[in-house]
Amino acid sequence: MLASAGVARFITFEGLDGSGKSTHLERAAAWLEAARVPVLVTREPGGTELGAAIRGVFLDPRFAGMDGTVELLLVFAARRQHLLEVIEPALAAGRHVLCDRFTDSTWAYQGAGRGVAGQVIERVDQLATGGRQPDRTLLFDLPAAAARRRGHSPARRRNAAVDRLDAEAVTFYERVRQGFLDRAAGAPERFRILDSAGSIAATEAAVRAALADLLPGPAGA
Amino acid sequence: MLASAGVARFITFEGLDGSGKSTHLERAAAWLEAARVPVLVTREPGGTELGAAIRGVFLDPRFAGMDGTVELLLVFAARRQHLLEVIEPALAAGRHVLCDRFTDSTWAYQGAGRGVAGQVIERVDQLATGGRQPDRTLLFDLPAAAARRRGHSPARRRNAAVDRLDAEAVTFYERVRQGFLDRAAGAPERFRILDSAGSIAATEAAVRAALADLLPGPAGA
Repeated sequence: MLASAGVARFITFEGLDGSGKSTHLERAAAWLEAARVPVLVTREPGGTELGAAIRGVFLDPRFAGMDGTVELLLVFAARRQHLLEVIEPALAAGRHVLCDRFTDSTWAYQGAGRGVAGQVIERVDQLATGGRQPDRTLLFDLPAAAARRRGHSPARRRNAAVDRLDAEAVTFYERVRQGFLDRAAGAPERFRILDSAGSIAATEAAVRAALADLLPGPAGA
Repeated sequence: MLASAGVARFITFEGLDGSGKSTHLERAAAWLEAARVPVLVTREPGGTELGAAIRGVFLDPRFAGMDGTVELLLVFAARRQHLLEVIEPALAAGRHVLCDRFTDSTWAYQGAGRGVAGQVIERVDQLATGGRQPDRTLLFDLPAAAARRRGHSPARRRNAAVDRLDAEAVTFYERVRQGFLDRAAGAPERFRILDSAGSIAATEAAVRAALADLLPGPAGA
């Protein structure tokens, strides 16, 4: 089924580090590229040079005492630049955008995790992005303890550096997980919740199904 | 005259680079310290480790295309951390704070200079600082061309590096100067406008007069 051919979609992959979101984003990009579907892969924070610089600040252990609202302002500064410089131009050029993390991560980490008020997140989001939302969000759900056991991204495992977020307790990540689930409950038409506890193959099949109505080619095959 | 002894004041020094504000801030701090008046000297951006990191991003020539609202979010992230970590604790401990640049610089540079809407600045200011204002603001006023001829801070001159702001045209700085004057016109009780075109000694005398009602000791002498 070729669904909605010609309409570029903005699709985000959300969940805890260790939830498999980045692995499945790479796999989805690979199917789409193999099927010659134009696709752009990007990430937050770090999808622009500015975002990478802000991400460096964000993960620096010297800034462990950073206030939650300060984090929020930095995250949305990077997000606005990312939207203006990367995401919107790609969509305008007809490329689907697969983005690793977006505003739902802010609600989960700064909101549910650090306790920044939803009203503040909402206002900064309006100012920075006009409340821009993805067309579809895949939430890779896993209990926080299991996500921790699976570890972080390969780059960080190789690095073996303990960054600031690594020092957070599992209880923090449980609040973050619940924050993601609450966001999904509030926007069921946009979200698809994928159980990340099973095999990679099973989750990959679920990803294909979750994108079948939006993307042409193999996703809908 | 010992005016308002015991009340710690938040005093900002504003103006273009080359206007003499930093020189006069150092001189005022020197009188006050000589008179054993407790004083903290700080600056924006850069008054915290986070601010210094954000300042590095801000001046990096790679980010010449940075959107005005992105700049705004970064500036206010640094400002909130600066208020929480440095300025408010010093005031609470009874130290006067002399700060090189604050929110009026944002109105002048991002607002008048780059055209970010005042309503957006106002909203981000409310979110980040609760609209915190200094007790007194000294505006060192000078035509933009004269400020440019006087050059930038000694550190930048020594460095001889051309940062991003150096590449702006004088017309930009004329808009910034007018932005400062408009801020001053809107809050005449808080602002004192000092003509920076004369000798350093003349301006210094004007600085003493402009602080006489707020600070004890030599400022009021």
